[in-house]
Amino acid sequence: MEVTADNKQILLKSYINGSPSESDMELKLGNHIKLEAPTGSNGVLVKNLYLSCDPYMRGRMQNFQASYVPPFSPNSVIEGFGVSKVVDSDDPNFKKGEIVTGLTNWEEYSLILNTNQLRKIQQDDDIPLSYHVGLLGMPGFTAYAGFFEVCAPKKGDYVYVSAASGAVGQLVGQLAKLHGCYVVGSAGTSHKVQLLKNKLGFDEAFNYKEESDLEAALARYFPHGIDIYFDNVGGSMLDAALANMRVQGRVAICGMVSQNSRTDKQSFRNMFSVISKRITIKGFLQSDFMQLYPRFLEDITHYYKQGKIVYIENMNDGLESAPAAFVGLFSGKNVGKQVIRVASE
Amino acid sequence: MEVTADNKQILLKSYINGSPSESDMELKLGNHIKLEAPTGSNGVLVKNLYLSCDPYMRGRMQNFQASYVPPFSPNSVIEGFGVSKVVDSDDPNFKKGEIVTGLTNWEEYSLILNTNQLRKIQQDDDIPLSYHVGLLGMPGFTAYAGFFEVCAPKKGDYVYVSAASGAVGQLVGQLAKLHGCYVVGSAGTSHKVQLLKNKLGFDEAFNYKEESDLEAALARYFPHGIDIYFDNVGGSMLDAALANMRVQGRVAICGMVSQNSRTDKQSFRNMFSVISKRITIKGFLQSDFMQLYPRFLEDITHYYKQGKIVYIENMNDGLESAPAAFVGLFSGKNVGKQVIRVASE
Repeated sequence: MEVTADNKQILLKSYINGSPSESDMELKLGNHIKLEAPTGSNGVLVKNLYLSCDPYMRGRMQNFQASYVPPFSPNSVIEGFGVSKVVDSDDPNFKKGEIVTGLTNWEEYSLILNTNQLRKIQQDDDIPLSYHVGLLGMPGFTAYAGFFEVCAPKKGDYVYVSAASGAVGQLVGQLAKLHGCYVVGSAGTSHKVQLLKNKLGFDEAFNYKEESDLEAALARYFPHGIDIYFDNVGGSMLDAALANMRVQGRVAICGMVSQNSRTDKQSFRNMFSVISKRITIKGFLQSDFMQLYPRFLEDITHYYKQGKIVYIENMNDGLESAPAAFVGLFSGKNVGKQVIRVASE
Repeated sequence: MEVTADNKQILLKSYINGSPSESDMELKLGNHIKLEAPTGSNGVLVKNLYLSCDPYMRGRMQNFQASYVPPFSPNSVIEGFGVSKVVDSDDPNFKKGEIVTGLTNWEEYSLILNTNQLRKIQQDDDIPLSYHVGLLGMPGFTAYAGFFEVCAPKKGDYVYVSAASGAVGQLVGQLAKLHGCYVVGSAGTSHKVQLLKNKLGFDEAFNYKEESDLEAALARYFPHGIDIYFDNVGGSMLDAALANMRVQGRVAICGMVSQNSRTDKQSFRNMFSVISKRITIKGFLQSDFMQLYPRFLEDITHYYKQGKIVYIENMNDGLESAPAAFVGLFSGKNVGKQVIRVASE
C-alpha cells in the first residue's frame, strides 16, 4: 500500500534584486508526495518540524552563480536548514523515527538524497529541538567559530556586536562575556536593547536607529576604543566602527544584512584607520571550521545546561508564515533567531 | 672660534587639506647655524646629504593629532628621513665624519637631539648612500615586513602590487618573484610599465590609467584570481582587487596614495567578497616589525650584492627641488624612489 500525503511548499517565484518581499515567494498547494525513500535512492523521507530563516538565504535568491553557495532555482522549493523526523529511510545510517538536522526544503515532507550533510539529534528534554537550527546549529556555530577563531579574543577586550540580538549576535555577546570581555551590542528597537542588557548579559546596548552619528555613539560606549568588532551588518556601521578601533583591533565580517545586494555601494570615510590602527578585517564562513563542530556542540550544550547562556527564538507557526517571517529578517522584525514551526513533534 | 654656516630650509607654511602643492612649502634663506653639537645636548650636528620624499609625509602636513605620527608644525622646517654626515657630536656613540641615517630635517645642516633613532652606516662602495632611505631604509623595510609578515606568501601565489614601480612596490614585486610567486604590477605610465616588465622582473604589468574597468583588467591579468594584493593606493583599485581575490586571499594595506585625506570617501561595490572569499585585509606599519630590521638589512644587502634585486631611484638635485619632488609623488611624476641630493658626499 502506497502512502501519500499532501505536501505544501514554499517556492521562490523568480530571482530577486535586492531584498525579498513576500510576493517573491509562493505557497504552493495541491502537491502530493509518496512517504517513502525509494529503494536504491540511499535517501531519507522526512517530515519537517522546524525550518530556519537565515539572512544568507537572500543571497541564494539572487542570480549570482559565483558565490560560496549556488542560487536557488526559480519556481522551485526553497532550501534551508531544518529539523526533521525520519519517516522512511533507504540509508542504513538513518532509521524511521529518528530526528535529523541539516539542509531540507521549505515544505511539509522532503526526500533528502544528500544524507551526508544530515546530523542525527539525540533528543534531550532540556534542549528544544528547534535549537538545532539556532543555538546548536549553523548560527550558533557561526558565533562560536567567528568569535574564537577569527576574533582572537583576550580577557578584558572591548567587544562590539551589531545585530546583537539576532541568531548569531546574541551568542557572540554571551561568549565574549564568558571569556571576560566587556561587551556592547546594538539593535534596532528599544525592546531588543532591553533584552541585550537584561536577559543576554551585555554590559551596554543601544538602539542604532536613535543615533544620528554612529561614530559618536560608538565613541561614547567605547571611550577606550574597540578591540573586536563582530560585524553582522556592514555598511555605515562598519565604517563607524573602523574609526573607533584600537591599535591592532580585529573586525570579523560575518554578515552584511544592511546591504541589499552583493554589489550595493558601501561608502567608507574611515578606511585609513585600517593602516593607522593596524586593523585586521577578516571575512569568514562557518563552513571553513567544521572540524570544530563537535567541540562547539559539547561546549555550548554544557554552557546552556549550566544556565550560563540563554537563547532567544522568534517562533512562527505554520509553513504559510515562512515568507513573511523571512522577509522580516531584513527589517529587523524578528526578536532573536527566526524559526518556523511546520509540525508539532 | 665659532663656525657657522648658511642653512637653507624648507618650511611647511600651513596645514593642508588634501594633497600638497608647492605653495604649501617655502624655501627659507638667510638662516645661519652653528656647526656644533652643544655640550650637554647629547646631540649630533649633521650635514644632510640625501633627503627622502615619502607619501606618508602628506599625513603629517594635515592637522590631525590622533594618527600614528604627530603632524608637523606650521612655519617649521619639515622633518623626514635622510642620510647625513656627522659634523660635530656630543653623543659618544657618534663621531665626526660618520654617516648616519634616520629622521632629520629638510635643511642643509641639522642638530639632531634624538640620536636613538639614528643608525650608523658602514660605507660600502657597492651600495649608494641614498639607498639607506630607499632600498635599505623605511620603504624597503615596509616592503620586506609587509610582504613576508603580513601577506603570508607561499610559492606559486598570484601576487598583485599597485604603485608597483614606487619606493615600496618595486621591492615587493622582486621579493615575490624571489619567493616563487607570479607577480603583476600596475603603474601610471607606459614607461613605468616597461620598467616593471624589463628591469624589475614582474611577470606582467599594466597602466591603470589606460583601463576603463579596473575589475575587468585584473580579471584579465589574473584569470585564476589573486592570492595576495599588496595595496599602496586604496580606493577604487582596492575595490577592484576585492572582486578578483581568491578564497582565503590576503590584502596588505600599506598606503592609500589615491586618497587625498584621511576621511576621503571611498566607495566599495565588492565588500561582500570579503565574506564570500574569506579575505583578510590587514593594515600595517613597518614600525611594528622593528625586531626584523637586522635580518632585513642582511637579506636585502645580500640579494642586492648578488644582483638578484635592483632598485630604481628618482634623484633630484638641491634642497630647492624638494617641494616640487614631494608634490610629484601624488601625481606619479617620480619614477622609482624619490630622493633629494642636498650635498655631495
